[in-house]
Amino acid sequence: MFTCTLRADSRKTLCEQLYEALRRQIGAGGLADGEKLPSKRALAAHLGVSTSTVEAAYGRLLEEGLCESRPRSGLYVTAGPAAGADAEKPPEIRWDFGTGAADAEHFPYATWAHLMRGVLGRRSADLLLAGDPRGSAGLRLALSGLVQRLRGITAAPETLIVGAGTEVLVSDVLALVGRDRLFAVEDPGYPRVRRILSAGGARIAPIPLSGGALDVRALYRSGAGAVYVTPSHQFPTGSEMDEARRAALLVWARETGGFILEDDYDSEFRFDGKNIPAMRGRDARVIYLNTFSRTLAPGLRMGFMALPEQLVPRYMEQHSACSVPAFQQETLEGFIAGGYMERHIARMRTLYRGRLQALRRGVEALDLGRLHPCDAGLYALLEAGGKTPAGELVPAAACAGVRLTRLSDYALMEGAKQDRTVLLGFAGMDEERILEGLDRLAGAWGIRGKEQNPKGGLTK
Amino acid sequence: MFTCTLRADSRKTLCEQLYEALRRQIGAGGLADGEKLPSKRALAAHLGVSTSTVEAAYGRLLEEGLCESRPRSGLYVTAGPAAGADAEKPPEIRWDFGTGAADAEHFPYATWAHLMRGVLGRRSADLLLAGDPRGSAGLRLALSGLVQRLRGITAAPETLIVGAGTEVLVSDVLALVGRDRLFAVEDPGYPRVRRILSAGGARIAPIPLSGGALDVRALYRSGAGAVYVTPSHQFPTGSEMDEARRAALLVWARETGGFILEDDYDSEFRFDGKNIPAMRGRDARVIYLNTFSRTLAPGLRMGFMALPEQLVPRYMEQHSACSVPAFQQETLEGFIAGGYMERHIARMRTLYRGRLQALRRGVEALDLGRLHPCDAGLYALLEAGGKTPAGELVPAAACAGVRLTRLSDYALMEGAKQDRTVLLGFAGMDEERILEGLDRLAGAWGIRGKEQNPKGGLTK
Repeated sequence: MFTCTLRADSRKTLCEQLYEALRRQIGAGGLADGEKLPSKRALAAHLGVSTSTVEAAYGRLLEEGLCESRPRSGLYVTAGPAAGADAEKPPEIRWDFGTGAADAEHFPYATWAHLMRGVLGRRSADLLLAGDPRGSAGLRLALSGLVQRLRGITAAPETLIVGAGTEVLVSDVLALVGRDRLFAVEDPGYPRVRRILSAGGARIAPIPLSGGALDVRALYRSGAGAVYVTPSHQFPTGSEMDEARRAALLVWARETGGFILEDDYDSEFRFDGKNIPAMRGRDARVIYLNTFSRTLAPGLRMGFMALPEQLVPRYMEQHSACSVPAFQQETLEGFIAGGYMERHIARMRTLYRGRLQALRRGVEALDLGRLHPCDAGLYALLEAGGKTPAGELVPAAACAGVRLTRLSDYALMEGAKQDRTVLLGFAGMDEERILEGLDRLAGAWGIRGKEQNPKGGLTK
Repeated sequence: MFTCTLRADSRKTLCEQLYEALRRQIGAGGLADGEKLPSKRALAAHLGVSTSTVEAAYGRLLEEGLCESRPRSGLYVTAGPAAGADAEKPPEIRWDFGTGAADAEHFPYATWAHLMRGVLGRRSADLLLAGDPRGSAGLRLALSGLVQRLRGITAAPETLIVGAGTEVLVSDVLALVGRDRLFAVEDPGYPRVRRILSAGGARIAPIPLSGGALDVRALYRSGAGAVYVTPSHQFPTGSEMDEARRAALLVWARETGGFILEDDYDSEFRFDGKNIPAMRGRDARVIYLNTFSRTLAPGLRMGFMALPEQLVPRYMEQHSACSVPAFQQETLEGFIAGGYMERHIARMRTLYRGRLQALRRGVEALDLGRLHPCDAGLYALLEAGGKTPAGELVPAAACAGVRLTRLSDYALMEGAKQDRTVLLGFAGMDEERILEGLDRLAGAWGIRGKEQNPKGGLTK
């Protein structure tokens, strides 16, 4: 029987290693054209891996035309030597359920281009100057109105800061609150902000969640002087911070003089009609942060924050220019002032709701596991069914060209390694591709599903 | 005689205080319409200030029509009560000799707009994605060619980082080299970078200059692990780092493992035809930094750096997006690839050379002082003539609506407070306004100049 050495300590997953070994054998003629491949069960037992690992590796060979399936017989090699020459390349991701994926097709290109052309046509000298370090007065006025309407926040334009995305703004926050403060983060939590804080020289205190939100008692015990939270949609659990917890957090800030950094990321995409105002709406000492990466496009590199009034002078001392080009500031101002932003968000909300529904239908039809309720945000949590070991869920999917992450990937503290919960981002693919991707996932995890063909039956 | 209390410890200059007091008196009717103002000499003696302080304050009243000059008699109030109601507003700057000023009139608007329209018209989905954290591959390739041609540097596109200006890039450098390193800076030196480093949590070691460039022995003694230098055009002294010093600095880096951050700011504007390659061209371990704020416009918020190869992986770990919008990256790529950048720089060099010549002519004709030789960069150093005390040179100018800075403003260490050297940026005004501004300066400093009317005689 075909054999190969699979290394548990390799950077590659077992499935990748197996796929590449098979491909090399075919390329070298060790597995000849027409030869029958061992059954999944037999090869899995022989190599000491799970059948889903073998299934995923065989799936890739099939997909690439290196073998074929003959009914009631098995898989046969269909390629000659040299076919596997480029075996070293990593599996290509074709279905991206990553939480950072975004829709690029529905960007309001025509409107944006029209507005930007108008800005270019004005040839105002102001466009060429560094301008106010907080961003232009006009844009801040427009943003002030937008957050009032969308998020129930009263933030004076003087306190708003426009910046080139979350990376730049979170670094700015660090310089404002001081690097000597221990910075608390949710655990599990958003790894990108954790990384920005670390790169910025902050000491990080991971605070566990209790009941889906930051454990405020643990926050007190940590001695932190600042905390990063995602109250409207906790990343990655998706839960919403309840009233009591919000109140307790605000009391913590008042009692200790600590700063709250509220990331309101994805708050625009609620599907249940509720609209819980941001914490900043209740206390102007909260630093409010949001981005246009999801509501518009990541490539625009724009976000903003509302600072507590007492931090504004320090911001002005530390900065001499806004990090967003003046052209783009003025385009965004026109986009908001013209009402395009709210229309675009409403449109995308409808679109994303449809994709979430497709995800629900697909998971149900394929019997992929139990989907957590999802009222907001652009990913859903799935407790994976099937028998694939928890640690193999993501690698097996990757091997089948599907990208996703596990809830435990976002935890700093140990203990959740056997958790079978994965995150399925649904923003970056249309409904049909979501269903295709779920179908691949079912294959990768060795889940047979229910009778009907889910894709054919569901997409119509 | 009119009297008022001038406070030496006020945040306002003596001239501003005097001007405001006069204006308040006029507004209140204490100095009535038609009343003669005391002579400059008499009021100066009465108040214990220099005559140039009184002259500058009177100059503003004249300019605002609150008094008039009667030949062979003196100054008479020409306004009634309430005229000075808005006396609290600071003097308006009308002639800006600041070193950060830039020309906004000659920005290649038509080309830039044409290229940006082309980018918008392509509607490529790539424009909406976060893309490579270093900036797009196309732009980095174009930049690699540009720095080769302009600055004699071989920097692989893989090592180039595009970022939203010096602020963002210097913060990134700090995260790359580590905040535990003591960061040496030139003293006197560029205050903005010093401020960015401080806000970023770096400990700063000011290193004196010797012979116009960083004292490398003092650098060794400081124990610094990184140093920020401006070799092609030291800020603010304008001198160029000589060969021996460059070699010594590179030896320092090799011996101590220290990082050199080379800011090549303004290197594009040399007026003597020489082209000294950047230090990075000699050692790929130098971090090279430059900006498009001066060659294009500050409002574009774009700069770039070339990293030593070993820092690139750390950069990639720390960042998940480039801080410059994809639209603008692609526009800049087209601008460089189309040869527009080099043509624009050549055109601006000619323009700025003309402005420098106007500055020279004006200083000479007005007998303003001794101008240092200036072969490069967009400001010149002037040892101010006249009798205005060193500490009053800048406030007296401000009072006359002229902005400039003193060399000693850029020094951290004491000892140069009596220095009469000022910096005259000439990039932001055309030749006529430069001559006008110098004329005001002569007035503010009580310099009578030579026989001829300098402005009339020079601008033709």
